[in-house]
Formats: sequence, C-alpha cells, structure tokens
Amino acid sequence: MRTQVGIVGAGPAGLLLSHLLARQGIESVVLESRSRSYVEQRVRAGVLEHPTVELLREVGLADRLDREGMPHEGISLRFDGGDHRIDFTDLVGRGITVYGQQEVVKDVIAARLADGADIRFEVGDLTIDGVTTDAPSIGFADAEGRRHELRCDAVAGCDGFHGVSRGVYRPAVYDREYPFAWLGILAKAAPTQNELVYANHDNGFALYSMRSPEITRLYLQVPPDTDAADWSDARIWDELQTRLAADGFTVNEGPLIEKGVTGMRSFVAEPMRHGRLFLAGDAAHIVPPTGAKGMNLAISDVRVLSDALSTWLRTGDETGIDTYSERCLRRVWRAEHFSWFMTSMLHNFDPESSGVAGFDGDPFSRKLQLAQLRYTVSSRAAATSLAENYVGLPYGAAL
Amino acid sequence: MRTQVGIVGAGPAGLLLSHLLARQGIESVVLESRSRSYVEQRVRAGVLEHPTVELLREVGLADRLDREGMPHEGISLRFDGGDHRIDFTDLVGRGITVYGQQEVVKDVIAARLADGADIRFEVGDLTIDGVTTDAPSIGFADAEGRRHELRCDAVAGCDGFHGVSRGVYRPAVYDREYPFAWLGILAKAAPTQNELVYANHDNGFALYSMRSPEITRLYLQVPPDTDAADWSDARIWDELQTRLAADGFTVNEGPLIEKGVTGMRSFVAEPMRHGRLFLAGDAAHIVPPTGAKGMNLAISDVRVLSDALSTWLRTGDETGIDTYSERCLRRVWRAEHFSWFMTSMLHNFDPESSGVAGFDGDPFSRKLQLAQLRYTVSSRAAATSLAENYVGLPYGAAL
Repeated sequence: MRTQVGIVGAGPAGLLLSHLLARQGIESVVLESRSRSYVEQRVRAGVLEHPTVELLREVGLADRLDREGMPHEGISLRFDGGDHRIDFTDLVGRGITVYGQQEVVKDVIAARLADGADIRFEVGDLTIDGVTTDAPSIGFADAEGRRHELRCDAVAGCDGFHGVSRGVYRPAVYDREYPFAWLGILAKAAPTQNELVYANHDNGFALYSMRSPEITRLYLQVPPDTDAADWSDARIWDELQTRLAADGFTVNEGPLIEKGVTGMRSFVAEPMRHGRLFLAGDAAHIVPPTGAKGMNLAISDVRVLSDALSTWLRTGDETGIDTYSERCLRRVWRAEHFSWFMTSMLHNFDPESSGVAGFDGDPFSRKLQLAQLRYTVSSRAAATSLAENYVGLPYGAAL
Repeated sequence: MRTQVGIVGAGPAGLLLSHLLARQGIESVVLESRSRSYVEQRVRAGVLEHPTVELLREVGLADRLDREGMPHEGISLRFDGGDHRIDFTDLVGRGITVYGQQEVVKDVIAARLADGADIRFEVGDLTIDGVTTDAPSIGFADAEGRRHELRCDAVAGCDGFHGVSRGVYRPAVYDREYPFAWLGILAKAAPTQNELVYANHDNGFALYSMRSPEITRLYLQVPPDTDAADWSDARIWDELQTRLAADGFTVNEGPLIEKGVTGMRSFVAEPMRHGRLFLAGDAAHIVPPTGAKGMNLAISDVRVLSDALSTWLRTGDETGIDTYSERCLRRVWRAEHFSWFMTSMLHNFDPESSGVAGFDGDPFSRKLQLAQLRYTVSSRAAATSLAENYVGLPYGAAL
C-alpha cells in the first residue's frame, strides 16, 4: 500500500487534513484505532472560533454547521454576586459558534467518504517507521487482524495526547497539571439562556454551556482525584445552582445523559516535526478547556500543514514544511497563554496547593483574581483582549 | 496643642494631604521623624501618572514640575533580542512625567511653609491614642526631647510601611514577597534615550530610566539577599549592557552617585480606617516598583481622604469617611494587580523558587511569559491595557 500522506487518527485534525490535502490534489489514507461510530459520538469540545468557522465554510464543510450551529455574540463572567457580559460583537465585530466536535467529525467523514477517501477504522498495533529516511511507513493490523504496511512520503501524527506518534522521537516537553479537574455533565434540559457563563465562586469554578436547543452542558471544578460516582445528580444540580446563581437566573434541570471527570493540563511538545513526521492537534499540545481552544488549535495546525505538505509534494519546495513547527507554535503558545489566563482567573486554587502558576490560592492571590475580573469587565481594552482571544485571532496575525 | 487633622509622616502622602486640607479650610499639623533635608533628598519613585500630574496642577503645586519634569509618551519592552515600543500617546492619548519623589516633596514643603503650615521634623517616640473615641491624640517628643500631645479630630497615618500607625489596630493583611530584589544605581551620565526600557533577559530583569538630563537611574534584578557591596561598578555596567542590549543602544556610563538594594513586596492592609485613624500611602499598601505605582497611589489616597475629612469636619456628613477605605481599595487593588502583572511578566523566576504567583520559573512558565510579552506588543487591545494602567486610570473610573 502506498499513499502520499499517511494520517494517524480520525479526529478533527486528521480528518480535516485529509480533506484539505485532497482539495490540493494530494492523496492520503487515514488510520483510526476506534470505530466510526465511536469517533462520531465522542463528546468533546463545542466552541468553534470565528476563523475555524470561516475555514470550514471556505472548504465546503459548513452546510450543516450553518444550519444547526448556534452563533454566540458574547459570554458572561459571573463573580462576586454580579453578572458581566463580554459583548464580542461590540468589542471585536465577530463571534463564536457552538457546534459539537463530534458534529464536525461526522461532517468531514461524510464529505471524505462521498469523495471516495480511504479511512480505515479499528486498526490495531500501529507502528511508525523510517520518518528520518525518505521512505517512511506505517504498519497496522486491520479489523480482521491482518498486517499491512502503508508506505508514504510523510506521516501526520493526529492521534491525540495518548497516541503513538509523539513517542517516535523525543521532543522537548513543557507542561503543567492543575490542582483540580472538571466534572462535566450533559443534561436533557433546554438551555436557560443562549450564551455561556463562566462563574468564579468561592466553592470553585462552574461553566454553563449548551450543545443544542435541547441539551445543556455543565461543568464544576472538583478535586483532581474525584470519582464521578461520588456525585449524585442531586448534589450536582445543587452545586451548579449555587455557583451559577445570579438575579433572575436558574439552571434548567433535566435527566443526565453523561457524567465524567476531565483532568486539567497544559502541555506542548517542541518541535512539532521530526523528519517526515508532523504532529498536529492534541498529539502535540493540550490546553485546559477553559479557553475553548483545543479543537480550534488542531484545525489551525492542519491548515498550515496541508499547505506545507501540498507545496512540498507538488513542487519540492521545503520552506513550508521547514517552518511548519515554528509557525504553528506561535499560535499554540498564544492559546496556551490565554487558556492559562482564563483558568487562573476563574478557578479557586486550594490554599494547600502551592507551586501552581497564576493565582496560588493564598488570600493575596484571591484578591488579585477579583481585581483582574473587575478590571476585565470594566476596561474596554481588557475586555477586547479577552474577546479577541476567545473568538480567535485571525490566521496570519503577528503573534 | 490642638488641630483638626494630625498627620503622621511628611512623605508625599502626608504633605499633600496637609495641602489639600488647607485648601478646604481644614487645619492640620504634620509630624515627621526624619529631618527636612533627609526627606527632601530621599530618592524613591520617579514616575508621575497623568492623573497625578493633573491633580498637582489643579492644586497649584506644578510650577516646577511643568518646567523640569520630563514628559514621556511611551516605554519600551525589550525581550528575546527585540525592542518594542508601547506608544502611550497613540494608544490612550496621554502620557507620564518623570519627576523624582523628592522633588514633589520639596515643592509641597515649600508651598506649605509659605502658607504658614505647622510641619515638625525630627520628632521622636510617637504614640497614637484614642482613635476609637471622639478625642484622638498623638504624643511625641520634639527635637529637644520635650514631650507634647497633639489633640485632634482625626489622625492620618502617612508614615510608610515601617511606621507606627498601622500597628494601632489589627487590619487584615494580604501580602507576598518575591524571590528577588532590585539593585538600583544613580549614575552621573546623560540618558542614552528619553524613554524607559523594561528588559526581560535570561539573566534577569533590567530597567533603564532617568531622573534628569544628567542623571541615569538603572536597576538590575538580583537575588533577595544581595549585598550591594558585592557588586563592583564594573560588574554593574557589564550586566546592564548585557541585559539592556539592543541594536544601536548602549547605556551611557558614568560615576555612580548611589547604589542600593530594594526588596520586592506586595502588601495591602484592610480596612484602611480604624475609628478616627485613616491610613494612606505605604502605611496601608506596598507595590513592587515595576509598575511605578507607589507614589501615585499615595497621592490618590489623600485626594479621597482630604475630601472625606473636610466634608465631615465642615458638615458632619460621615458618608465620605465611611466609604474612604472601600473607595481607595478599588484603586489600590487595580495597582496591586498591575504591579504584579508587570513584575511577573518581566522577571526571571528562579526554578528553585516555588510558590510564587505568576510565572514560576519552570520552563512552561518561561514560555508563557514570552507568549504574553509577544502578545502585549502585537495586540492593540493588550498594549492599550498596559498603557492605560501605566499612565493611570482616571480618578473615578469604575474599577
């Protein structure tokens, strides 16, 4: 078997890369260890930046997104008993769109398969070889257990934080774990309001969001070793009502569809390229979800990568692939900083946890945090800074 | 002896308070433990915010300031080998004025004495009594050792961080010490350029500033336990040239006039009032000097305090004195946050020092710091946020 680009992973990064390459006449094969229905159901991120939406439109992947996505023109910051709206439209003239990651995945899979693409689900025992030669290859077992070798010009590692791609070489690693996690629930309940609420409460952070006009998505800051089973539905609703309380606002309750605990981590591997192997998305970097940047970064990576690879494969010009890592990392670090900023400003840091960047949880830090929140909602410059990061800085902006 | 307001301390806060009260027909006596020549020579802060300059003009204290002060329209941030100007005039339409604290002190002393004010220098053994009664008093010994008692309606504690005023009650205290200090020098050398330079270098922070067309003021980040005697002049110039290096820029060298080490601390005491005692300036709060906010905060405190006290003493209306602490603390915490932000962004945090808010000195934090610096100089919103804080948010702004 042979193709031009062997893509490991059928998440948003790998699938979109395959689509973008095809548009430039470059062949690829996508290998995914999970089943198609698994990746199409996997609930993850749900906020699309403005540049992400524009890109999806430009490449013909936004028909359903434009019909079903929920455009948002702002968010609320809730703290110290008050609610403060950050008006994206007023501040920066653009907004975000709420549309689940799994919906993006469904749309790209449908488009690729309609286009005759080769996507192989449920492959096993994946190995990546020869990335420092001019003949890299990916070995894998198909769903029936037969071994195959996929020879290619380049390998794209889009297999997420726990994938095998990053293990092929030894990138420098920058990381941080936060002393808390998020308990996330999906509830069959109509959203109380149309925009997200980020709440800084003495009990901890809470996030109010939604996935559709019938489904509410809610999060609570919890200790990192929390077992979701210890949180009864009643306790979850209680705590959500407490932390999200505001005049005239009540969270609509409903049956829980899903309940899970997510760790909070910042992580960057540098460089994102090793020979003929190119990492993209979570394989190379993780952000805490507070800034809603994970999927958007994955998409901006493969935007740069598809151009770099297609130019190289069509013309032999290596400039794009040589600068791939550096170009991506500027946007990656911008997002890492913004995600850390939002995380630091909104969570309560336990006084017992020291050595955490940002606000430490001591009384002085708590006061700084409230001063920063008050400033963010009272200064147009500060609110604009939050807004431009949240809706996504334009591709190609100096960062 | 009796007066309306007994003021402890003849720094910028105490002196200006006396002046502002006199303009509203309120009598005061200022008591200072140091000599007049000491307070007039003491080199401290040197940056006046725009609202500070406007206030000094409004109350007739800016004749010499307007002649000799050096208006600045921006600062430079220097990092990663590049120099980046923050243009205050372009971003916020106003700037700062470089004018030494001791010059402000000289101007106010001259104005007060010309007005027949009672300022007593070199007093000793100062005690404050009865602040929770309606008859507070200040006991002190004059320069000849004779005891006096100054009875008054209110006591203003303007005696700095190490003064006695704050010890009269038990305010809540919020504080942080940073794992570094500043080695500051005054040199007889014409400034190389007309604006301040804040440099983030792998060796540590450096600040390039000036006090007059003949005097350069320079600072180096050093370990907190540094003995200035261990730093020869040659070593200081070497390190300054290294940390401040940029294309076409060399620090002009010259004889050192002064050399000293300053600790870096954030500190706030709440509330700033206890009965008839009102703290103002460093007695109530300390900021690390990175944001150039210390003297400006002292001046904004006494602006609020003079109005509150004169209204109360003239009409009996207690609203102003009852809200004094809360009103000041909004601006204080804004300045505390900004000073922490500048300090965190610009210093190198030793990897061995943990538990410090902001950037911790680990490799991840160092990357965040550079991402924040790059963003600050490339986003107009972020640069505006820095500029509006640096030049001083307007008095009365919602904070």
